[in-house]
Amino acid sequence: MTATVNESTRNGVDTATLFATLDAVKAAPEAAKFQFRAHNEWISGTHSRGTIYGFYGVGAERTHERAFQFDADHPAVLVGKDNGPTPVEHLLHALAACLTAGLVNIAAARGVELTEVHSEVSGDIDLNGILGLDPSVRNGYEKIAVRFTVRGDAPAEKLREIVEQSRARSAVFDVITNSVPVSIEVDAG
Amino acid sequence: MTATVNESTRNGVDTATLFATLDAVKAAPEAAKFQFRAHNEWISGTHSRGTIYGFYGVGAERTHERAFQFDADHPAVLVGKDNGPTPVEHLLHALAACLTAGLVNIAAARGVELTEVHSEVSGDIDLNGILGLDPSVRNGYEKIAVRFTVRGDAPAEKLREIVEQSRARSAVFDVITNSVPVSIEVDAG
Repeated sequence: MTATVNESTRNGVDTATLFATLDAVKAAPEAAKFQFRAHNEWISGTHSRGTIYGFYGVGAERTHERAFQFDADHPAVLVGKDNGPTPVEHLLHALAACLTAGLVNIAAARGVELTEVHSEVSGDIDLNGILGLDPSVRNGYEKIAVRFTVRGDAPAEKLREIVEQSRARSAVFDVITNSVPVSIEVDAG
Repeated sequence: MTATVNESTRNGVDTATLFATLDAVKAAPEAAKFQFRAHNEWISGTHSRGTIYGFYGVGAERTHERAFQFDADHPAVLVGKDNGPTPVEHLLHALAACLTAGLVNIAAARGVELTEVHSEVSGDIDLNGILGLDPSVRNGYEKIAVRFTVRGDAPAEKLREIVEQSRARSAVFDVITNSVPVSIEVDAG
């Protein structure tokens, strides 16, 4: 834990900067237009490696402080070599991380000091869909369940409201529970 | 590259095992019912750590060969400490990895030898949504674009058909372009 503790920091969130950022975006809404990106390189079989580095936001091309790399694969039972989680597991991680970041920011903004946040996300999927064996079965998850444990210096009801507000403002929750158009272009040869 | 090359291996995919798995699931469709999971632990601010290890499938509780851990955070420009990609970037990685694993399996099944597969995924998002500053703006991505480069020993048209079949059978593509119900339970105190 290397978080700097100062007057405006709560839950590791610099609330002064958080509120200043909100004011800056209110004054210049274009600053909030972002484009995020991932590069993927096939390695062998179901094993591939994603690299996340550059993005666009606040009116300029930007980069993370370093390039982040993540492997994905299938386990042996799904004819892979288990060099990483499956893509659908990466997706569950994205959902938990999004809800968590949101609720910590919201708690900080509302003056609530959190002591513990953890979650378990599970997704039920019938692979008869992606295997093409049953046309009545969808390819993706049938349902996803998130179980949060949240501890802090506020009554349980207030902590639940913070989680609810995080759900109401989560980008990944929106993507999963609603639909996003995805275009695919192919340079083949 | 440590892929074992034998008579039934193409693109690093053990096609004999792939076809045997399809036959086994045809004979016992219940084997295809899986549950995937992710655990998430808040660290500080928008920084959290996901752990992916156990899952259920082929009628039994299983684990990956090791636990995989992935950090998520916001960059400084979004009031984080950049200890990992944002959750919405993890989501783009999941999409690319899913489409890639699918197309490599499909190419192997169709007798196509691939020499190169890489992709760039980008997602456009207006953060006025999650910041709560404009009720007409959604929280998640407005649109996502995938650009594949695929090289192999088949005509361009056949390679494009393989990508199209991967799209038609991708779990993550389905989750993003359609909707999945997500329940959230909270143990607060």
